[in-house]
Amino acid sequence: MTKQVVAALQVGSSPKGTKETLKKILSYEQEIKEKGVKILVLPEAILGGYPKGSNFGTYLGFRLQEGKEAFKRYFKEAIDLDGEEIRELAQLSNRTGAFITAGVVERAGSTLYCTMVYIDPVKGYVGKHRKLQPTGTERLIWGQGDGSTLTTVETSVGTLGGAICWENFLPLLRQAMYAKGVQVWAAPTVDGRKIWGNCMQTLGYEGRLFVVSAVQFMPPPKEMGYELKDWDENENCINGGSLIVDPYGEVLAGPFTGKEGLLHAEIDLDKIIEARFDFDPVGHYARGDVFQLTVNERSRDVTFTK
Amino acid sequence: MTKQVVAALQVGSSPKGTKETLKKILSYEQEIKEKGVKILVLPEAILGGYPKGSNFGTYLGFRLQEGKEAFKRYFKEAIDLDGEEIRELAQLSNRTGAFITAGVVERAGSTLYCTMVYIDPVKGYVGKHRKLQPTGTERLIWGQGDGSTLTTVETSVGTLGGAICWENFLPLLRQAMYAKGVQVWAAPTVDGRKIWGNCMQTLGYEGRLFVVSAVQFMPPPKEMGYELKDWDENENCINGGSLIVDPYGEVLAGPFTGKEGLLHAEIDLDKIIEARFDFDPVGHYARGDVFQLTVNERSRDVTFTK
Amino acid sequence: MTKQVVAALQVGSSPKGTKETLKKILSYEQEIKEKGVKILVLPEAILGGYPKGSNFGTYLGFRLQEGKEAFKRYFKEAIDLDGEEIRELAQLSNRTGAFITAGVVERAGSTLYCTMVYIDPVKGYVGKHRKLQPTGTERLIWGQGDGSTLTTVETSVGTLGGAICWENFLPLLRQAMYAKGVQVWAAPTVDGRKIWGNCMQTLGYEGRLFVVSAVQFMPPPKEMGYELKDWDENENCINGGSLIVDPYGEVLAGPFTGKEGLLHAEIDLDKIIEARFDFDPVGHYARGDVFQLTVNERSRDVTFTK
Amino acid sequence: MTKQVVAALQVGSSPKGTKETLKKILSYEQEIKEKGVKILVLPEAILGGYPKGSNFGTYLGFRLQEGKEAFKRYFKEAIDLDGEEIRELAQLSNRTGAFITAGVVERAGSTLYCTMVYIDPVKGYVGKHRKLQPTGTERLIWGQGDGSTLTTVETSVGTLGGAICWENFLPLLRQAMYAKGVQVWAAPTVDGRKIWGNCMQTLGYEGRLFVVSAVQFMPPPKEMGYELKDWDENENCINGGSLIVDPYGEVLAGPFTGKEGLLHAEIDLDKIIEARFDFDPVGHYARGDVFQLTVNERSRDVTFTK
Amino acid sequence: MTKQVVAALQVGSSPKGTKETLKKILSYEQEIKEKGVKILVLPEAILGGYPKGSNFGTYLGFRLQEGKEAFKRYFKEAIDLDGEEIRELAQLSNRTGAFITAGVVERAGSTLYCTMVYIDPVKGYVGKHRKLQPTGTERLIWGQGDGSTLTTVETSVGTLGGAICWENFLPLLRQAMYAKGVQVWAAPTVDGRKIWGNCMQTLGYEGRLFVVSAVQFMPPPKEMGYELKDWDENENCINGGSLIVDPYGEVLAGPFTGKEGLLHAEIDLDKIIEARFDFDPVGHYARGDVFQLTVNERSRDVTFTK
Amino acid sequence: MTKQVVAALQVGSSPKGTKETLKKILSYEQEIKEKGVKILVLPEAILGGYPKGSNFGTYLGFRLQEGKEAFKRYFKEAIDLDGEEIRELAQLSNRTGAFITAGVVERAGSTLYCTMVYIDPVKGYVGKHRKLQPTGTERLIWGQGDGSTLTTVETSVGTLGGAICWENFLPLLRQAMYAKGVQVWAAPTVDGRKIWGNCMQTLGYEGRLFVVSAVQFMPPPKEMGYELKDWDENENCINGGSLIVDPYGEVLAGPFTGKEGLLHAEIDLDKIIEARFDFDPVGHYARGDVFQLTVNERSRDVTFTK
Repeated sequence: MTKQVVAALQVGSSPKGTKETLKKILSYEQEIKEKGVKILVLPEAILGGYPKGSNFGTYLGFRLQEGKEAFKRYFKEAIDLDGEEIRELAQLSNRTGAFITAGVVERAGSTLYCTMVYIDPVKGYVGKHRKLQPTGTERLIWGQGDGSTLTTVETSVGTLGGAICWENFLPLLRQAMYAKGVQVWAAPTVDGRKIWGNCMQTLGYEGRLFVVSAVQFMPPPKEMGYELKDWDENENCINGGSLIVDPYGEVLAGPFTGKEGLLHAEIDLDKIIEARFDFDPVGHYARGDVFQLTVNERSRDVTFTK
Repeated sequence: MTKQVVAALQVGSSPKGTKETLKKILSYEQEIKEKGVKILVLPEAILGGYPKGSNFGTYLGFRLQEGKEAFKRYFKEAIDLDGEEIRELAQLSNRTGAFITAGVVERAGSTLYCTMVYIDPVKGYVGKHRKLQPTGTERLIWGQGDGSTLTTVETSVGTLGGAICWENFLPLLRQAMYAKGVQVWAAPTVDGRKIWGNCMQTLGYEGRLFVVSAVQFMPPPKEMGYELKDWDENENCINGGSLIVDPYGEVLAGPFTGKEGLLHAEIDLDKIIEARFDFDPVGHYARGDVFQLTVNERSRDVTFTK
Repeated sequence: MTKQVVAALQVGSSPKGTKETLKKILSYEQEIKEKGVKILVLPEAILGGYPKGSNFGTYLGFRLQEGKEAFKRYFKEAIDLDGEEIRELAQLSNRTGAFITAGVVERAGSTLYCTMVYIDPVKGYVGKHRKLQPTGTERLIWGQGDGSTLTTVETSVGTLGGAICWENFLPLLRQAMYAKGVQVWAAPTVDGRKIWGNCMQTLGYEGRLFVVSAVQFMPPPKEMGYELKDWDENENCINGGSLIVDPYGEVLAGPFTGKEGLLHAEIDLDKIIEARFDFDPVGHYARGDVFQLTVNERSRDVTFTK
Repeated sequence: MTKQVVAALQVGSSPKGTKETLKKILSYEQEIKEKGVKILVLPEAILGGYPKGSNFGTYLGFRLQEGKEAFKRYFKEAIDLDGEEIRELAQLSNRTGAFITAGVVERAGSTLYCTMVYIDPVKGYVGKHRKLQPTGTERLIWGQGDGSTLTTVETSVGTLGGAICWENFLPLLRQAMYAKGVQVWAAPTVDGRKIWGNCMQTLGYEGRLFVVSAVQFMPPPKEMGYELKDWDENENCINGGSLIVDPYGEVLAGPFTGKEGLLHAEIDLDKIIEARFDFDPVGHYARGDVFQLTVNERSRDVTFTK
Repeated sequence: MTKQVVAALQVGSSPKGTKETLKKILSYEQEIKEKGVKILVLPEAILGGYPKGSNFGTYLGFRLQEGKEAFKRYFKEAIDLDGEEIRELAQLSNRTGAFITAGVVERAGSTLYCTMVYIDPVKGYVGKHRKLQPTGTERLIWGQGDGSTLTTVETSVGTLGGAICWENFLPLLRQAMYAKGVQVWAAPTVDGRKIWGNCMQTLGYEGRLFVVSAVQFMPPPKEMGYELKDWDENENCINGGSLIVDPYGEVLAGPFTGKEGLLHAEIDLDKIIEARFDFDPVGHYARGDVFQLTVNERSRDVTFTK
Repeated sequence: MTKQVVAALQVGSSPKGTKETLKKILSYEQEIKEKGVKILVLPEAILGGYPKGSNFGTYLGFRLQEGKEAFKRYFKEAIDLDGEEIRELAQLSNRTGAFITAGVVERAGSTLYCTMVYIDPVKGYVGKHRKLQPTGTERLIWGQGDGSTLTTVETSVGTLGGAICWENFLPLLRQAMYAKGVQVWAAPTVDGRKIWGNCMQTLGYEGRLFVVSAVQFMPPPKEMGYELKDWDENENCINGGSLIVDPYGEVLAGPFTGKEGLLHAEIDLDKIIEARFDFDPVGHYARGDVFQLTVNERSRDVTFTK
């Protein structure tokens, strides 16, 4: 059986915090089951949150104390990967049979990382990927991942991997992941712009694989309890835009915008075979003799040996 | 003065041969001058031609003599890089002041290559790029380029480079060219599909540069003197689709379809600076510690030394 | 004991698929034993098949959906090198005591390769060689091997190596393999023409080694369930032509044409010594000071390091 | 006009010496003119001679004075490249319009070389190639050529190059010459065996070029004034076997055996184009990324600089 | 302690083969010990043999089958450098404390080389030198060494290097070895003539070093089981002539002729210092500004890289 | 006519000065004519003198004024190459028909050189060679020659070249001169020791040419008006030792010792051909691929260009 259902859950982090967000996610259990979802992708930073418009009181050369306080609050909303939230997601996965990959804000020592977790219906947590390169102001609150988390996992649908938000634009990261045999690419993000969808289509087409991109949906600032400078007060903070793309770059579902919801599509892995007949970015079409890519998967951590 | 005019000349190879095609190109001289074009991109294989729908009598395990004859005719329509056609383009470049990059079928020894030539208004021919990986049936008629022609050239507009048709989809090739500082990316092609335009937008956005893609336009088969199996007889063989994209992935002009013509736009190089403030694929956003790309620019040719 | 029996098994891929072909091969077990075969060479692509006359719906500039379907079917008939077919060949090798080298269509990721596998009577699968340069339409369905599979293996008869079909015509490939000390050269092919035999004689003579060339035999198109354009309907699709050549270029057995069967000959490795007394292409007769060959055995694959 | 006549002049060195041999060559003037020969190939060592069966009194560890005398006589029959014999050949070339390449024994200082000279109808002597690796007993009388004489020349027929006798079996030498664009390959030899013709066919096919091989014809030993140990007294010393091969490895003329004479054939250079459509050993079919050949064309001579 | 004993063992290869020769060498163990020999030089080709007067059935342009058989027998008497013979010499070296350098016929692939092996009392085999240019008939049976074996080794006596037989006459080879700092020059040979001794004196004087030349001794042909054409039947095949020379060109011991035996002398390395005060061929006396010698130590072998 | 007479004139510089020495030389005119001498070699420094045993008052760190005076006298006895002495030698050459090469002390600006002059019977002075490396105390009075005077000249006997005294021991100088085709080697010297003759034999043998070495003869110190510290008062200052050697290293005439006189021998150039059949140091026996010698013949002088 090569046809399976994959889905993106387009929700937003609750202004009330991680617990509330988790509840919101769990509320989709029935729909996930009914649609027979086998891979479920959740947006970037959905647990932990993405305080759009904040700059954490940081300016070139000085910081405000209020920013430090803001960070402290943000730090506390982040999750530990061996904590309660992951256990709850694992149970959801187990009950629905859907493999889950979700964007979270990971607490590791005193640094936060923007991370994707991989959760198997049977085994639970099986791996993670930390965003390699935060964008703009994100660099003030998130550390950089390293090459040790270029994770792919086997699911009932096929080989699953992915990347978070703008790191999807890194050609070398994509090539590395293609070389690992990814068939379904998860792309959690908070980027609700049209160009994002365009890039997802290219990614699907270039990689000759299926893309499931889950975007947060956030209502206008006021509803979030924010003030967003220079922002139209009626415009959603993040407008969503989740979509599912096939190996020819065609959009199978979405872009889904303007509200929360579960976006799904049936995919057929055989399409990958025929699409790569034309173009296989790491097989017959690659030119490894000219472009030799070496990927350093070694952890940046201090190593203690005996 | 950072604003300049760039253009794509959307024409098709004449069924009457290379000489006629050249005449057609030269007929645009006045328009090129009037619009003040400073970089002019011509489509893939415009000189030499792209006999769409042919398979050169080649089947798995045997070849028809008629295919060999077809190849011989095709071989003779190809051009030598030190020949008359390049001289004529160089004179056009000189008279109009437009730097020209054109897709040609290059004759080199007994092998044909799908090549981009670079022609400077003052210096004439200054370099070439050979397509690294032909697609499908192209592999029967064109050789593979090697790493020695990853050419970039300096023009009055900025650093110009590019790639031909589907090799634009190779992530490592793009990264290599970004690393060479390309500001205007020329993309000659015969791919008239919608997804091509989508990919060009992603390329502009990912590389944070301007893209000028010139697509051939070919009328329906009957007008070309072809029969095209399984092809709607009223459909154009190649429908065009030339477009010009900015560093935010926005389309400045085109997609221009359904006929021949000169597509132009004014570009402002300063936009590159601001766009790379967010994302510089080979600078602050790259992760060379994780992804080490080595580009082998050595020629594959036999080397003779003394 | 320097005299040993080597053989070529001239069979064709079954139109019923890889499983049937495998059965046909296994049916020769008794004859292989009786003749005391110590090295057995099977033709190119014998497992996976060589759909002569197909072009997989691929024309310059477009592809037919029916070609994509054809490729998908072909992809599924290909074999994984860690799969059942290799295990069965390994058991055949073990039971007969014959080292086996066989041409197969190898499935690796989404790309197919035309591969020779090396199977030892005791150790089973011990290595492979991927064809470096597919010919004509093969370029549409098979990727290029790289320098990392210029394999030679030790057998009870001597050092065994080889090349597949037309790559045997590459002078530099041959010199590289001679330099590795090949004594018995296996040449699986689907080329049933007279000139092939001529080239095999030259190869044996030039390399001063034994050549065992196994050619597929395929009956006329109708029997294969094909239609073959411009092909005499009574002519065999591939007429065989397996042969065994000695280090003086003399034909020891064959060319064997017109039907399936096991072609064998007794060889005496001592003949190599005396033949290289006259001419040793990598020893006393070489001119490495003038012609310096460097062979890049690095894999083209993306490298992951830790 | 791509069709032209090429020829091999099958003669033997006169036992009476170089002057007589030269006369014999000149006696073919009328026939060369009548047949419209444009490239004429003469056998190896035709001027200077090939005293088959001699060993110049040389045994492992000592030499006979009679051998030294024999060498001295042989030395004096050799020619200087600026001498009378070359001038006479140049005049023959001029009168007939045939480009001539001839095997000669070249005197250079105190060492003899087995050399091919290239003689243009208008310019006269234009270059030479010295055999790189003499075979067997030849190593006692001829020095080794170096990489500085891998000569090719332009003729009215196309690019002419070649190699002498067994050095034609060196794969790297052939590849180097293919890379220089040879279209007509001259192969002077004294090898009158059947396998020689076989190898010439392979050379034509592998290199996709025309081969003109000129073999000496020498009558039985008694007629030559020799005694040839272990040689059937009625057998010719060298039986000829000149032949002309096309780029598909087909024999256009010959093998011509058993007597002296002029062997000719009309060739069509266009056949090279179509033959290399399938296989171009230094173009689309080569794998220079895997097999990097560097040819050292530096002279071995002491270099004097200022 | 700058005074040490060096020696040449003047023996001949046994007509019974390599095993017998080895026994003969080992029989000198007691004498080597008693004389306190620290460097022991054995003659050229002592293991493997020098079948003086043979021409291996090779004549200009043809070969006798009996010669091929002779070569096959000779090939089998040659030694592998990782074989039993080297192990036995290494044990002899270890038991006596004498560093040994011996001339052997080395089997490498299908080519034989005339080689000096270097054997250390503690480390065993530490290197080799292959004769660069065989003389006369030797070119039929031995390949040419390349620049990669211009070996020198450190011994308890000083830096040891050398050359075999007539290659000692090459001025550039000597200069290259002087430049490597040789203090004791080993010259294995089969040249028993008076001029050989003369040249060894010049070598010692020109190089300002000690020379130990070991010459084979072979009795008259009949005792060897040979017939030697044009040879006085009472004359020894090789008359010996081993000698030891000091840095002033003075003969310290020998020439030792007419029988087998161990020739020794005490040498004092300090003499080199004083002799080079006058003339240092690679130091103060050299004129590298005028004569620039570049030594290419690159192996001629095909290179495989990754 | 390949047989000719060559000679060495063994005389000593007169203690009375250059003029007297010249007279002594001229006194041999009749004998030169009678013997039919075609090449005449005179000793090193014969004009100008070799004040054996002097140190020109020079010690490490200081000089005596008396040494300066001695040098001044010596400087004045030296000759200008466009002066009277050369003219007189040229006339002698013309009258006798003997080509003359003579060792002289050349005055050039304020430096003296130890030089060989070449004087043709018809053309007179035709070239010179300056000693490249003076020995020991010579370095205090003579400058170093450079590569611009590695002169060879054509004579009626053959190509003549040479070197002075100990520079004959430089392997690279010899190889350079061999490469220039020297057939008769002139070796003027003041070295009257036995080892000198030994080296000359090796030179003839190694270079396979004729050597004519002319040594000064000087009587005991008292007769010269010297005192020679630590010298047996009855021993000649220089005992002569002139000799003539053939290409096999055999001594044709000499060593001639103990008095002045004209030493001559008949030589046959054909012997060079047969001797180089075995060994040609710059032809078939050389290994220019391993030992690449580049000779810088550029003058060391300041260059003025326009």
